[in-house]
Amino acid sequence: MPNKPTKETFVTEITPRSEDFSRWYLDLVRRAELADYSPVKGCMVIRPYGYAMWELIQQALDARIKATGHVNAYFPLFIPNSLLTKEAEHVEGFSPQVAYVTHAGGEELEEKLVVRPTSEAIIGTMYANWVQSWRDLPILINQWANVVRWEKKTYPFLRTTEFLWQEGHTAHETEDEAEAETLKILDLYADVCESVLAMPVVKGRKTESEKFAGALRTYSIEALMGDGRALQAGTSHNLGQNFAKAFDIKFQARDKSVQHVWGTSWGVTTRLVGGLIMTHGDDSGLVLPPNVAPYQVVIVPIGRENWRETVLPKALEIQRALAGAGVRVTLDERDERPGWKFAEWELRGVPLRLEIGPKDIEKSAVLVARRDTREKQSLAMDGLPQRILQLLEEAQANLLQRARQFREEHTQRAGSYAEFREMMEGRPGFVIAPWCGAADCEARIKTDTQATIRNMPTANVPPGSCVRCDNPAKAEAWFAKAY
Amino acid sequence: MPNKPTKETFVTEITPRSEDFSRWYLDLVRRAELADYSPVKGCMVIRPYGYAMWELIQQALDARIKATGHVNAYFPLFIPNSLLTKEAEHVEGFSPQVAYVTHAGGEELEEKLVVRPTSEAIIGTMYANWVQSWRDLPILINQWANVVRWEKKTYPFLRTTEFLWQEGHTAHETEDEAEAETLKILDLYADVCESVLAMPVVKGRKTESEKFAGALRTYSIEALMGDGRALQAGTSHNLGQNFAKAFDIKFQARDKSVQHVWGTSWGVTTRLVGGLIMTHGDDSGLVLPPNVAPYQVVIVPIGRENWRETVLPKALEIQRALAGAGVRVTLDERDERPGWKFAEWELRGVPLRLEIGPKDIEKSAVLVARRDTREKQSLAMDGLPQRILQLLEEAQANLLQRARQFREEHTQRAGSYAEFREMMEGRPGFVIAPWCGAADCEARIKTDTQATIRNMPTANVPPGSCVRCDNPAKAEAWFAKAY
Repeated sequence: MPNKPTKETFVTEITPRSEDFSRWYLDLVRRAELADYSPVKGCMVIRPYGYAMWELIQQALDARIKATGHVNAYFPLFIPNSLLTKEAEHVEGFSPQVAYVTHAGGEELEEKLVVRPTSEAIIGTMYANWVQSWRDLPILINQWANVVRWEKKTYPFLRTTEFLWQEGHTAHETEDEAEAETLKILDLYADVCESVLAMPVVKGRKTESEKFAGALRTYSIEALMGDGRALQAGTSHNLGQNFAKAFDIKFQARDKSVQHVWGTSWGVTTRLVGGLIMTHGDDSGLVLPPNVAPYQVVIVPIGRENWRETVLPKALEIQRALAGAGVRVTLDERDERPGWKFAEWELRGVPLRLEIGPKDIEKSAVLVARRDTREKQSLAMDGLPQRILQLLEEAQANLLQRARQFREEHTQRAGSYAEFREMMEGRPGFVIAPWCGAADCEARIKTDTQATIRNMPTANVPPGSCVRCDNPAKAEAWFAKAY
Repeated sequence: MPNKPTKETFVTEITPRSEDFSRWYLDLVRRAELADYSPVKGCMVIRPYGYAMWELIQQALDARIKATGHVNAYFPLFIPNSLLTKEAEHVEGFSPQVAYVTHAGGEELEEKLVVRPTSEAIIGTMYANWVQSWRDLPILINQWANVVRWEKKTYPFLRTTEFLWQEGHTAHETEDEAEAETLKILDLYADVCESVLAMPVVKGRKTESEKFAGALRTYSIEALMGDGRALQAGTSHNLGQNFAKAFDIKFQARDKSVQHVWGTSWGVTTRLVGGLIMTHGDDSGLVLPPNVAPYQVVIVPIGRENWRETVLPKALEIQRALAGAGVRVTLDERDERPGWKFAEWELRGVPLRLEIGPKDIEKSAVLVARRDTREKQSLAMDGLPQRILQLLEEAQANLLQRARQFREEHTQRAGSYAEFREMMEGRPGFVIAPWCGAADCEARIKTDTQATIRNMPTANVPPGSCVRCDNPAKAEAWFAKAY
């Protein structure tokens, strides 16, 4: 569990969300001690309270990754430059963003090393050694790692030069198996976002211009932030045989022929912590879904100066009872006014606050305040842990429901380009429209409106014509302005 | 759980341990698919079976680190060169080993960045911002991360250019508190080594010449490998105020004076996986203590060609029962001879093998073979999970006991330098001897015998004179040839 927050802050007040969403986000990240700027350009420090959220996300994701038959491993941070350049599209996509180690151990290196921006190149090289026969397939490996992509403009959690992620890399006998894996992981990601982060996502395929450098097809999950901008929350790539051909990953098939494997790769990052903040937060600070809250309950003792004698013993007893029921609970024993403590823990988004004073003890009750609805109610001490677990479930479900409703209210369909452009004023959320499939049309829409195609949830071809160019529609696309 | 091992191997036979310990180790690491060489000099790939062991070590360690009030966070991989150079001894110790990023994002960087060899410099810089008052102390932060130290000679797990570790960094109000923290962590490390890895360790203080660059005092835990060489398995440093002064980490004390904090740092690495192999392994391969075994039990069905009909259903039932009891269990369903399977799983060190055939089913029993003692016994199906849990505990305890005994048999005391030199022929284990405390005497002993002072378990000054120079003894030192 993270340290108790200290009074020391860099930001004393947070800008109201309604006034300036971006300022609100930056203030909140620092004031709630989620992250801090570092002396390294574009790199942030993830502080204990923010890191505890990432650990909860990791646990949920890792359990699901293992339950679907994958195993973890670890591959080197450095990639010899000659390996990165083997897959032509891949190197073209990543080389502008890479960091190079040129000197080490007091010498200039013969070949410069790339600090991994992603690990297809190094993992593909190893798979080529490990795979000989169809019996060696599938390979279902994941790694938890840091990666580096030199970004011109960075933003805490959403876009940083170094970030933490998991990257799955799999190799299969057949094209169908690789496609099934790609979609299975997309579902797994959507499940974690919805059931843990209470963040609904749209699953769909990316356009050719937005796909991963070197992939056959990229799928993504897209969430809608509180300001009406979309956030790409995870991607799953069907790599086809591109990397297998570039890295010579071959196997003897059941029919004795020698074939290239079919690959996938997929990842989610610390960006999810940013998505969580932007989905649920309000003017008072964070609002955390219980499943990803480092503390699900804070107990605040109320009373006169002698509260340490009159109230604290009962508060400790409740803390023990809740902890025993598996609740992540903290007790704020600091010598501060209760009102100050309430504001601090609201800022940190703790789902439930329990207030307990001498009168509550007399009545054998506690006052419970929900962060998500701000409702207060008195609960009997008797059976408290069960009731708290129930309230946590209710808060979790309510946040997902609220976020779903917000997305529904911010999703529209456009019939004409005039209507599309009008809808795209400001930050409206998603606009669904038919699209011809042409990259120049997609680019033109972006120039006109700043909106990009987030993804295409269905492979069905819609009737009618493209929202912009009047050519026959090839796909129904979800557009939005995005982070 | 890791993938089932494949028949594909680079090493078909492992060299007997008794014949060539070093060759045996290297063969075993690759043949048991613990790690593989990578195309990056000095960097290895940790394969799923080896990584699963590291994950079990991480879980045990992380739980203890959190239970003692520490929290996890994440700091940047890169350290601006100017920060590394702030602590004079620190930079002197590490600069020959660092890797530099000089180019990124298509440009030459204004200031080169060091890939962290350890994080005191970047973390100290952040602590200077976070600490103002004694109320902000202690800071008890740990991070799980990769680090890079350019090594001339590398060895899988024991010494690699990139390795994984945890590094704790704490800041305290007083010198006593920092010293207590340093020793608390040393005990915690020793507990993990003994209760999880079944690897006994000697706790003690390092000499001045072996301490961490920039520390006041370094403590270590030292284990004895099966070939009689010592392995430094973890270190805990009392940093005094050295880094606080270099990075200006100051606070207002209770008496309103402004003071520098007292620091500690401590770490253990993926080297522990190497220690595990070298402590318990034998000519047939790995011998894993159950607490760190990815699979604690393997079930091998025995029978004629129709075993899938006659034996498999019962084997699956046992697997479910054991998994339900919390045992990490796998069932080897491959179409291979039982004898081949036995050898494969022995190589992989699985603590218990369950053999089940038609005759066992008739008798409602299974045959259990222990990897540590090679004993076989028939066990009734009835109450099997409880009996298996008991056997796993026995195997865990036995391996620790055996390793303790080995260490005792390989620890001697030397009275004279002649005796010391004679004892130090070959790889005898530990030799305990009084030492005068002089660095040149320590260096001379190393030149004469290749032995180094591993640590000094007690602060008591022994009677008599230094084993080499006849000056008065200042400490009782444990010498060994070391990895």
